Amino acid sequence: MMENEVFASFTFYSTILIIKMYVLAIITGQAFANPEDALRNGGLQYYREDPDVERCRRAHRNDMENIFPFLFLGAIYSLLDPNPIVARIHFLIFCVGRIVHTVAYLLQLKAPTRSVAYSVAQLPCFSMALQILFAVLTRW
Amino acid sequence: MMENEVFASFTFYSTILIIKMYVLAIITGQAFANPEDALRNGGLQYYREDPDVERCRRAHRNDMENIFPFLFLGAIYSLLDPNPIVARIHFLIFCVGRIVHTVAYLLQLKAPTRSVAYSVAQLPCFSMALQILFAVLTRW
Amino acid sequence: MMENEVFASFTFYSTILIIKMYVLAIITGQAFANPEDALRNGGLQYYREDPDVERCRRAHRNDMENIFPFLFLGAIYSLLDPNPIVARIHFLIFCVGRIVHTVAYLLQLKAPTRSVAYSVAQLPCFSMALQILFAVLTRW
Repeated sequence: MMENEVFASFTFYSTILIIKMYVLAIITGQAFANPEDALRNGGLQYYREDPDVERCRRAHRNDMENIFPFLFLGAIYSLLDPNPIVARIHFLIFCVGRIVHTVAYLLQLKAPTRSVAYSVAQLPCFSMALQILFAVLTRW
Repeated sequence: MMENEVFASFTFYSTILIIKMYVLAIITGQAFANPEDALRNGGLQYYREDPDVERCRRAHRNDMENIFPFLFLGAIYSLLDPNPIVARIHFLIFCVGRIVHTVAYLLQLKAPTRSVAYSVAQLPCFSMALQILFAVLTRW
Repeated sequence: MMENEVFASFTFYSTILIIKMYVLAIITGQAFANPEDALRNGGLQYYREDPDVERCRRAHRNDMENIFPFLFLGAIYSLLDPNPIVARIHFLIFCVGRIVHTVAYLLQLKAPTRSVAYSVAQLPCFSMALQILFAVLTRW
């Protein structure tokens, strides 16, 4: 499957996005969500749910809601033998959209930057979902 | 792989469930979880964590906890060359169970509707998980 | 693909971890996060967000943030034809690290047990992510 140009392209963008999520987890992890971690790091007063940490967590959760389905849709879509350039445009739009989404979330960029990034990234997902349904239904 | 009847059936139900999750995200997104979004849409008084939004978010989170593992288990199970009818029953029960779960959550249907839907949907997941473990262990 | 030794090994550890997540969900489910469930089970006073339930939920969420990406990275990595022993070491470290992480979370083991388990489990993930990127980039 890695010989498949579309699939290789899909794995590239997917892995970039997973690494982006790991980086977000590291940023979030700078705060202490559990009393025992705070105790070890200076005292209970550092145990907190502050707005910035909650912001990171919402960004991360939004990633889970959107990037994980992409990992599935993109893999199946790659098996449908799509045009390699069209496929890569799908993956690229999603990848850039999600990176802009995270930056807009963390830096609190002026609305509607974040929601536009979110919506743009959803377009290739809906496109791939419909193409998968169409491919299965025409086969049956 | 898309020539494989079981795998094609799996991709169909999986994609339906992912679209269901996207619809849930759109419903949740009608409320404003961030101050800057509320400001742009009529004022800070619309920034809220109201019980209905929290309900949507719990439903969505429960989907992530259950539908994402299904995407994995179903794909691997499809590769085990199961009986196509038995396999489709697995996928169909899960798909219907999860749709009922979401409806019961959002419309606050009388208990135990939602928890029954949840439990029924878990049955094919446990079945597939055990069959995967069995297939690997008998191979070793 | 199930004839592939590395892939079979990957599916084994992945399925173990998914079952671990299901068990965590069952533990969390002992509390009632929705008023209608509490009403059915003794009264509204059992509707609660207590610290132990929140702890289970954080453990489960952390699993989603880390185990789901592993399901993707491990599958792609298996397709890269890695050395079977090296591959199995990757999967085993991740699996053990995540089980220790859950135990440390639920039993509130002394810090830094949980964060060390988390970090150790991330090592094979970063390793696999980099190997995937390297494989794609050298192919282009």
